[in-house]
Amino acid sequence: MDLAIHLDRASTTPLYQQLIEKIRDAVLEGRLKPNQKLPSSRSLAKSLTISRSTVVQGYEQLESEGYLETRRGSGTYICHRIPDEWLKPQSIKPVTAKVFKACTLSRFGLSLTSIKQLEVSEPDYEISFRYGNPAVEYFPMQQWRKFLARHYKDSTLLNYASDATGYFPLRIEIANYLGRSRAVRCTPEQIVIINGSQQALDLIARLTLNPGDWVAMEEPGYLGARYCFMGQGANLQPIAVNSEGLDVSVLSKNRQKFKLIYVTPSHQFPTGVTMSLSQRIALLQWAQETDTLIIEDDYDSEYRYGEQPIPALQGMDRSQSVIYIGTFSKILFPSLRIGYLVAPPAWIPIIRQAKWLCDRFCPTLEQYALTDWIASGHFERHIRRMRHLYDLRRQVLIKALKGYFGARVTILGENAGIHVMVKIETGLADDIVIQKAAAAGIGLISAREYYLKPQHQGEFIFGYAQLEETQIEQGILKLSQIF
Amino acid sequence: MDLAIHLDRASTTPLYQQLIEKIRDAVLEGRLKPNQKLPSSRSLAKSLTISRSTVVQGYEQLESEGYLETRRGSGTYICHRIPDEWLKPQSIKPVTAKVFKACTLSRFGLSLTSIKQLEVSEPDYEISFRYGNPAVEYFPMQQWRKFLARHYKDSTLLNYASDATGYFPLRIEIANYLGRSRAVRCTPEQIVIINGSQQALDLIARLTLNPGDWVAMEEPGYLGARYCFMGQGANLQPIAVNSEGLDVSVLSKNRQKFKLIYVTPSHQFPTGVTMSLSQRIALLQWAQETDTLIIEDDYDSEYRYGEQPIPALQGMDRSQSVIYIGTFSKILFPSLRIGYLVAPPAWIPIIRQAKWLCDRFCPTLEQYALTDWIASGHFERHIRRMRHLYDLRRQVLIKALKGYFGARVTILGENAGIHVMVKIETGLADDIVIQKAAAAGIGLISAREYYLKPQHQGEFIFGYAQLEETQIEQGILKLSQIF
Repeated sequence: MDLAIHLDRASTTPLYQQLIEKIRDAVLEGRLKPNQKLPSSRSLAKSLTISRSTVVQGYEQLESEGYLETRRGSGTYICHRIPDEWLKPQSIKPVTAKVFKACTLSRFGLSLTSIKQLEVSEPDYEISFRYGNPAVEYFPMQQWRKFLARHYKDSTLLNYASDATGYFPLRIEIANYLGRSRAVRCTPEQIVIINGSQQALDLIARLTLNPGDWVAMEEPGYLGARYCFMGQGANLQPIAVNSEGLDVSVLSKNRQKFKLIYVTPSHQFPTGVTMSLSQRIALLQWAQETDTLIIEDDYDSEYRYGEQPIPALQGMDRSQSVIYIGTFSKILFPSLRIGYLVAPPAWIPIIRQAKWLCDRFCPTLEQYALTDWIASGHFERHIRRMRHLYDLRRQVLIKALKGYFGARVTILGENAGIHVMVKIETGLADDIVIQKAAAAGIGLISAREYYLKPQHQGEFIFGYAQLEETQIEQGILKLSQIF
Repeated sequence: MDLAIHLDRASTTPLYQQLIEKIRDAVLEGRLKPNQKLPSSRSLAKSLTISRSTVVQGYEQLESEGYLETRRGSGTYICHRIPDEWLKPQSIKPVTAKVFKACTLSRFGLSLTSIKQLEVSEPDYEISFRYGNPAVEYFPMQQWRKFLARHYKDSTLLNYASDATGYFPLRIEIANYLGRSRAVRCTPEQIVIINGSQQALDLIARLTLNPGDWVAMEEPGYLGARYCFMGQGANLQPIAVNSEGLDVSVLSKNRQKFKLIYVTPSHQFPTGVTMSLSQRIALLQWAQETDTLIIEDDYDSEYRYGEQPIPALQGMDRSQSVIYIGTFSKILFPSLRIGYLVAPPAWIPIIRQAKWLCDRFCPTLEQYALTDWIASGHFERHIRRMRHLYDLRRQVLIKALKGYFGARVTILGENAGIHVMVKIETGLADDIVIQKAAAAGIGLISAREYYLKPQHQGEFIFGYAQLEETQIEQGILKLSQIF
């Protein structure tokens, strides 16, 4: 009896595992029939020139899975209970790439197929100006690890959390910090801990938007938010951003009934404009009159340079129209995946339900460590330290841009955040600029895709937080040499 | 000039912060008007008997927020740019509890309001038989901490991950483990790392279900899954479970076109029945013929006692009809929030998109540590150790139940998992049984709510993993004394 088994000795898959797979396949494809006797472990081992214990291990596993059965004093057989019809090869559809028909995807699934691939895995540039990542090498990893380690003693923290909204003392720390530094007015009960600001956007979009609903977005605006609204099948209305931020006079001329408006008042993404106080007040008034929910995404507000009036919209709101979003990704580190939202009290029960449904709660130990880290002052000290560093890098970038490009460059939104938007007159299309930069080892991002109605050329986003001063200087020098 | 400010010295809010809030309120409520002069910091400090630096700090903050302005040589004023109309109290709606009208919630939001509160915060029972939590005090926290600490050296791990589906080496370890121990057949590319099995359920529900679609559920069945389907507005069809698991003959008599069927073949939740091989084959055949997607939730399959044939459905499937879900919550610990799903290759791009949209990716450092923990064999060693412990606790529970209740008790699903379902003849309604147990310090869960069509009384779910042997024995003794 020949099992026609070929084992690959060069493979990283253990031999017994290969044996199991081959026999399982043979059964399921009908090459081995129910009640068929298998060779003894000794003879199979000999014919395959492998050790007998490998065969025994494989047989035992297959028996425990119900493929084989041992008949006392007789040997090992293919299990008699596997119905014949299942074993006929013709009853098995060929495996094709197209395993789901369009009809089995929901509307949400279908809208995702229409969105371009969301991840960006970038080539390794010598110098990448990609925005978003903070200067992670300055994060005090060992200190943070020690804060975490403190809680690696209490095994009750390993259990399911009883509150989907997060660890209450962390919510207290956040409420106090936001009140202190961002003029956000809230109780800890209004705070929900989430996996970064993206989850806040998704939760709010899901809880509010039906297909066909209208959402107002800053133009240009943040893609992570746009895609959440598109996923829900919403219609997007771009609203122009000027030097005072989103232009509320343009907004109020729109006739649609908006359900949501998404804004980034502290440091508009990507232009970097700070919304003026008068526009903030006008926006709140408009929202109150039109019963529109404002999402205020304060994604990098911790970093501002110089004197600017930036009270959070949330703290000025008197009509419970604002849900405020913040993240620890830019201050601690992005791969921590902790952020928060601040919602009017009446929203909390439904957000709690949604959070439970999505993934129950955020990891516990990190929430405990973060609470201590904020309470002990390290959090705000780290912000101050990084603000100083980013300010330096920002100045190097601006000086280099002005020095090498002169009058051909306009810099926007330099007073806050960890990126600037830069208009460069190159006389070339953005694609060409980016290609040429890439060829010189420089990663560059055009602002074009952040517009719903692309029309601008020559706008680029420069993240500088993650680059050393010499890299920034060199990167800009190289760019200037290309054009 | 009197600002009518009262500061609370007993409060934990710093005095300067209180001052800021009071002035901000006064401006927004119109009690302080634009261009109105404020007392000098010296005189306000005196009148409030606080230090001058506290007032200066408060004024500076309010100035940076745009509420105040300093006029050189003249003093501090309420900013002239705050529009008058905003300051009239009558223009501000009173804050009410009802801040969202029904129309501003999406269909999803509305369905969540119809679901009972999802979290369970249980009273502190002396002995709680609540199922779900593993014996976390046996988890090697210090060892795990060391595995984590290894990676607290590489700051690049702190950045945004480039792949929403998870750390590839972890996906390799999971694919190998699943192949070895669960007869799951997949490549690492088919695996997506998620925040526990709940996120898998939610992602799949969202990607497949439109309002009005039909889903088949085991009866009784898992609530976490049911609520995800309800959240999407799906119709649920309960399918009876018998001693061979879900009854496929009942299923195939249904005339609805199902989009999904949710099953727990290894250890049916909550009955604990293991689905027979013939029923598995019948289910796969039905799914293939009807183009239905099977969700196989293998939530506690690692723990089985004795010889049972339990190949995963996924490994027998030849028509790419199965999405398999697993979790590390029961083996490592629930508050880690790491699980995985295994999907047919064609599903991966859309699941990746959805994962990115929901929360981008799972925390990185934990994925690295887990990879090492599995690769070094600790993972499977821990499973074996815990299997032994749970087996012991299980035997104590069964012996106690039989010993104290005799013929009045029937135990189901004892051969796998970390809970059993128990039928007890008490002659009382479940509510009364639970009340009486609670009064004696015993936490007990009725199986009633797991039925879509509640009809059974006297079925209870006993989790035993988290209880010491003496607690189990005592708990059952106490219960027997009540009835």
